[in-house]
Amino acid sequence: MSKILINDLLAIDKPIIQAPMAGVQGSELAIAVSEAGGLGSLPCAMLTPEALVNALTQLCESTTKPYNVNFFCHTSPIPNLEIEQRWQASLKPYYDQLGLSLNDIADGSGRRPFDADTLALLNDFRPSVVSFHFGLPDEALVDQLRSWGTKILSSATTLEEALWLEERGVDAVIAQGLEAGGHRGMFLTEDLSTQSGLFALLPQCVDALSIPVIAAGGIANPKAVKAAMALGAAGVQVGTSYLLCPEATTSAVHRQALSGAEPHTALTNLFSGRPARGIVNRVMRELGPLGDAVPAFPLATAAIAPLRAAAEAQSSSDFSPLWAGQNRSGCQAIPAAEITHWLMS
Amino acid sequence: MSKILINDLLAIDKPIIQAPMAGVQGSELAIAVSEAGGLGSLPCAMLTPEALVNALTQLCESTTKPYNVNFFCHTSPIPNLEIEQRWQASLKPYYDQLGLSLNDIADGSGRRPFDADTLALLNDFRPSVVSFHFGLPDEALVDQLRSWGTKILSSATTLEEALWLEERGVDAVIAQGLEAGGHRGMFLTEDLSTQSGLFALLPQCVDALSIPVIAAGGIANPKAVKAAMALGAAGVQVGTSYLLCPEATTSAVHRQALSGAEPHTALTNLFSGRPARGIVNRVMRELGPLGDAVPAFPLATAAIAPLRAAAEAQSSSDFSPLWAGQNRSGCQAIPAAEITHWLMS
Repeated sequence: MSKILINDLLAIDKPIIQAPMAGVQGSELAIAVSEAGGLGSLPCAMLTPEALVNALTQLCESTTKPYNVNFFCHTSPIPNLEIEQRWQASLKPYYDQLGLSLNDIADGSGRRPFDADTLALLNDFRPSVVSFHFGLPDEALVDQLRSWGTKILSSATTLEEALWLEERGVDAVIAQGLEAGGHRGMFLTEDLSTQSGLFALLPQCVDALSIPVIAAGGIANPKAVKAAMALGAAGVQVGTSYLLCPEATTSAVHRQALSGAEPHTALTNLFSGRPARGIVNRVMRELGPLGDAVPAFPLATAAIAPLRAAAEAQSSSDFSPLWAGQNRSGCQAIPAAEITHWLMS
Repeated sequence: MSKILINDLLAIDKPIIQAPMAGVQGSELAIAVSEAGGLGSLPCAMLTPEALVNALTQLCESTTKPYNVNFFCHTSPIPNLEIEQRWQASLKPYYDQLGLSLNDIADGSGRRPFDADTLALLNDFRPSVVSFHFGLPDEALVDQLRSWGTKILSSATTLEEALWLEERGVDAVIAQGLEAGGHRGMFLTEDLSTQSGLFALLPQCVDALSIPVIAAGGIANPKAVKAAMALGAAGVQVGTSYLLCPEATTSAVHRQALSGAEPHTALTNLFSGRPARGIVNRVMRELGPLGDAVPAFPLATAAIAPLRAAAEAQSSSDFSPLWAGQNRSGCQAIPAAEITHWLMS
């Protein structure tokens, strides 16, 4: 399609969406970016209903600007005892090392898909933008959001996914290049070889779709914003560059890793069951970043959580998901508003 | 570094290098691109000494413009009988299906690294540009090339490789994004998780290096050329978009696959022993694109060659390396000069 920026569609000044990053940010980062003229995002996948209401209340009280509320829409898996036991067995040596017991593993996955209950909670807030990861929820739920005037975004990692989303009426598609940090938004395939660099994915989506395409993955400085626009993007979604901002809740070990010597990231399913990009750490190195014996998303999280907590208490990032994209050069420990202004400079 | 195009460095009109593509082109494609004002490339890795001299003679007779001569500079491996036998055993069912015998496997790898003999052959031609894949050959050989005024290029797939090449005095680095077709130029690591999309790799190289950086991978239309320049590239290297040109020697099955329905490419080591990007075909699907039991580069080629020949004789691409990048949208069956002009339009 012809190049129309997302500014009008989303009623924002700058065509920059701060990527929702569950676990490393709450409403404070979203507020800062929205106030700076971009679109701040609240990641809700890991929030309890109470936490979600609190975060939304804080957002509403702190900004009159538009913001984005992000949800996962995976299908909750049926637990598989055999895979769970194999997974726990592979982690057992680490439990022993850290003086932990497998009995410490809590029930529950910690990540809820978007459902009718979530929709009901949103009713009081009626956010102007809702974005989804892993496809879209049931059509009736999306229709209800639309009836509020809410704009719907979702991520595509292949041209097929982008076309699928357009067919279902999303207002814009986020083309998530392989460079992006965090979870791959893939939902029509589990084959990682289908995942494409942004230079290949973005122009193909722009050519094939008649709705705006937002570029994500590896965008870490003003030149990259201009390059994405040159490729036809209507806006950009930036995550990694915000991770060191004071408004982010990025943990100390995560901040250290972002500034550290480990040169590269990898896709790993060890932390959740789905492939996500993070800085290579001990557990990824020792088990291999992509395991076969890993429970389905999001069940894998439960057994690694005690290891993570114990290690982080010793200032170790050995078992932490250190989500980051392939270009960390934009990470700066400065206010999110400054990052937002800088990206457009 | 500041944005200086490669035009002056390489004495060309357009900052476009036609990617050397062994097996699918000879001098004809290189001549067409050089005559159109870009830098045509002759891939020499699979040429016998006679064929190399013939191709260079044809180049010299057909154009007075600069051209690039490309070599691999891998270390030839010591054959491992056990791995070779496991590899042949995994291919045996296909041999049976096609009525072939494992005795049909020819000796020899078919790919020679650049060495003193190659240098001696080049002496009569003294090409203005030589590019390498998989690092650089011995320093003495490179020094000899330099003494002729030849400019030296090589590919980097990580920032570390780019810095390594700059330290050794190359004139420009080709930043090969993960989107690129054909062999990954990686040489300091075998870990595929280090491989980066162009959006992440290119700006990091541009920021860190003081020599020009040429962008490669997924560049398939004029917008992508502009985007690469916006990211600081001094030029672009384009391969896939030239594959359907009449001047290319791309096989019929390869041309068909490029125009066909299979939506995606993958990295595979089945055809040579090193990871290279090609369109997914039967042998990649059935054996998995990346095998453990594959002989070291370039020895894997020998055992798959008879299968390829027999299948291609039946117009089947089941065992052919269908090299292609992640963006095939630029492939057009038009003269290479037109592709070259179009990319700069």
